[in-house]
Amino acid sequence: MTAPLNATHDPQRRSWVESANHPSNDFPLQNLPLGIFRRSGRDAPHIGVAIGDQVVDLAALAAAGFLPDSAKAACAEPTLNSLMGLGPVAWSGLRTRLSELLGADTCAAASRQTAVSACFVPMESATMMLPARVGDYTDFYASVFHATQVGKMFRPENPLLPNYKWVPIGYHGRSSSLVVSGTPIRRPHGQTKTAEAAAPTFTVSQNLDYEVELASYVGPGNAQGAAIPIGEAEGHIFGVSLLNDWSARDLQAWEYQPLGPFLAKNFATSLSPWVVSLEALAPFRVPAFARDPGDPSPLPYLSHARDQMIGGFDLTLEAWIITPKMRAAGEMAARLSRGNFSSMYWTLAQLLTHHASNGCNLLPGDLIGSGTVSGPEKTSRGCLLELTMRGAEPFALPNGEPRGFLQDGDEIILRGYAERPGARRIGLGECRGVVLAANP
Amino acid sequence: MTAPLNATHDPQRRSWVESANHPSNDFPLQNLPLGIFRRSGRDAPHIGVAIGDQVVDLAALAAAGFLPDSAKAACAEPTLNSLMGLGPVAWSGLRTRLSELLGADTCAAASRQTAVSACFVPMESATMMLPARVGDYTDFYASVFHATQVGKMFRPENPLLPNYKWVPIGYHGRSSSLVVSGTPIRRPHGQTKTAEAAAPTFTVSQNLDYEVELASYVGPGNAQGAAIPIGEAEGHIFGVSLLNDWSARDLQAWEYQPLGPFLAKNFATSLSPWVVSLEALAPFRVPAFARDPGDPSPLPYLSHARDQMIGGFDLTLEAWIITPKMRAAGEMAARLSRGNFSSMYWTLAQLLTHHASNGCNLLPGDLIGSGTVSGPEKTSRGCLLELTMRGAEPFALPNGEPRGFLQDGDEIILRGYAERPGARRIGLGECRGVVLAANP
Repeated sequence: MTAPLNATHDPQRRSWVESANHPSNDFPLQNLPLGIFRRSGRDAPHIGVAIGDQVVDLAALAAAGFLPDSAKAACAEPTLNSLMGLGPVAWSGLRTRLSELLGADTCAAASRQTAVSACFVPMESATMMLPARVGDYTDFYASVFHATQVGKMFRPENPLLPNYKWVPIGYHGRSSSLVVSGTPIRRPHGQTKTAEAAAPTFTVSQNLDYEVELASYVGPGNAQGAAIPIGEAEGHIFGVSLLNDWSARDLQAWEYQPLGPFLAKNFATSLSPWVVSLEALAPFRVPAFARDPGDPSPLPYLSHARDQMIGGFDLTLEAWIITPKMRAAGEMAARLSRGNFSSMYWTLAQLLTHHASNGCNLLPGDLIGSGTVSGPEKTSRGCLLELTMRGAEPFALPNGEPRGFLQDGDEIILRGYAERPGARRIGLGECRGVVLAANP
Repeated sequence: MTAPLNATHDPQRRSWVESANHPSNDFPLQNLPLGIFRRSGRDAPHIGVAIGDQVVDLAALAAAGFLPDSAKAACAEPTLNSLMGLGPVAWSGLRTRLSELLGADTCAAASRQTAVSACFVPMESATMMLPARVGDYTDFYASVFHATQVGKMFRPENPLLPNYKWVPIGYHGRSSSLVVSGTPIRRPHGQTKTAEAAAPTFTVSQNLDYEVELASYVGPGNAQGAAIPIGEAEGHIFGVSLLNDWSARDLQAWEYQPLGPFLAKNFATSLSPWVVSLEALAPFRVPAFARDPGDPSPLPYLSHARDQMIGGFDLTLEAWIITPKMRAAGEMAARLSRGNFSSMYWTLAQLLTHHASNGCNLLPGDLIGSGTVSGPEKTSRGCLLELTMRGAEPFALPNGEPRGFLQDGDEIILRGYAERPGARRIGLGECRGVVLAANP
């Protein structure tokens, strides 16, 4: 379902929205990510597309007759769920139309630009919301580097379990506590127990962590009892965002056996507001992860020649931090890690196909997290647990501050982008969250 | 928040709906469970209350001016979510009014009975639906007998993990695949691997199982970041139903480490249609499970004198089966097990309070499964995994058929009820599901 490159990808094309043409802008004409916003002081959530420093109100564009019939009604909804349910032909048609409306070459007439810009809201005055009503949120564990590093800490004798290279390991997360970028995160309480202690205590988590993940949103999905063949999987992926899977490592270590993480994760999960389509990322497709010679091939239901050839995404994902001390000193954020989604052991298509392989019904707007994106290099480790060896080797920030785990007031900023010579840079935007002190 | 006994519990009271007065009927005047139904051939889902063999349409009762102002608008909704959000004062007010309207003593005038019975739909012609839009479904593991039995099979050296008696172990389930009683269950495919095999295969599950559980529905719930004190927990429980947590044991054994069950469970979970309030169950409250002298006391956040005194429910839960052969011979269902909810290690209040203790927000309509209800006796084991020692000791049905795990065409029927001398029997109704052959 990966669309071939077309005029919407042409790196030479510019928007008449000048801010979109700056080379470092996340939202050029070639991106066109969708999200949900409210105008400041107004209540109704609308679908918007990001272009440079502007949000274009799709409900207003639809009302003005600018949108294709196939997507018009869905674009007037208060969430992206209906549009997600329409599938890739409608998504692509909408993208083409938006590209025409915002392209300097295809929308040159001043009168038409005036009509379109009547639907603009400056990004700085738009309040972003979650892009979809997420019915179910699933989190995978698709980085073999993350699984191995974490496995070493929790099970030194047995870091990578025997199923890992066969089964895309995943579990269900909590939908109710998904929050949009910018929402503060309350430090949780919970049960913890050190190896030496005779009994656990219920206390404030001391080992609060973030996890850099890529999230994908489900498109049309499948009926209960039906499966989604691997060759069709990408037609069921509406797009991707950044996800921060906040994790209380002290709670996790004590609670997670035998049924997996629960309260260590479900207090909050942050999402970036803009959803970037797979079509926008088409110029950045790369082969699926190159398995080691000794690794098994994927079982047939997870195996597809095209997925192997272009199942990956050359997408850089970064974590940054601003501590209260840095904020007080007016310092910029410091980078904690930089990884790449191409290092993931399983492709997005494999995660989705595996999820539906037992007949589990995936619905429009369902959210699938990739799991922490960590690569082979130490600098690419996507959480403090790995970066600091469970806090034992604190990370040294540029101002000399050490960080084993997160402190109150720390802000974590995830950033994601794709860039390569000959293509226009595509950004995912940011996913931010500041840690609040625990309730008394 | 457990209401004292009042006129709605009086076992001497009868309904003018004669079918409700039969001693074995699940839905006497003292029960008044709520659910969502459609009239045959009509589309709009309405809230109904079960009385004997009738369903009373609450939207119609509300329109006719029979319901209290506090619950009137919520009773006209197509799901129970709004009513669940109102809290125990409104729930109790509605129950009192329904008891008055349906009581032979309190609604003796023929004209009034005629007006109320204009809102009746015969149960046999009502199509039942899920009671609520379930935002998040959580499944616990609250039977120490189940945890120990299953632990023995999966981890013979380490059956009950060290956290079990401190932490109410739970994990997130799948909301999208919740189905109402009567929905057929498609046998899933998935990865399985025997200990001897070098590699897993993707195949039809051979070890399909059921699990007898009690489900509770969340009432008002809590804001993200806030907790629910144990003393207030029951005010956030709208009521209980039967839940069948269908489980593919061969898939589960291979996939569940380290993040817990996933595809082994999320293909389908069945719910009974009627939600029985905690107030209806007030005559059947018993002390919380008596821990062994060597067991730890619950940590303070899970400890409350009243919960210890009456945290339990004397509620019998049974699993029954009809095989294709039995069906063809016109035989009745055979009982597989009979357990009691009073044998659960953790109370419903403890499960809810633990769930919110990290600030995880619980919302009206969220579903909390208890985990398999198994007691100390072999006859009380609530799944085939336990009853048959992982299929090694098949269960002998009355007609001589053996059952290790479920076969295609088998129907599982869960039943639940509370009864004791001096109280009117309260039934939960049934939760049924027949196993369909896997897709080719």
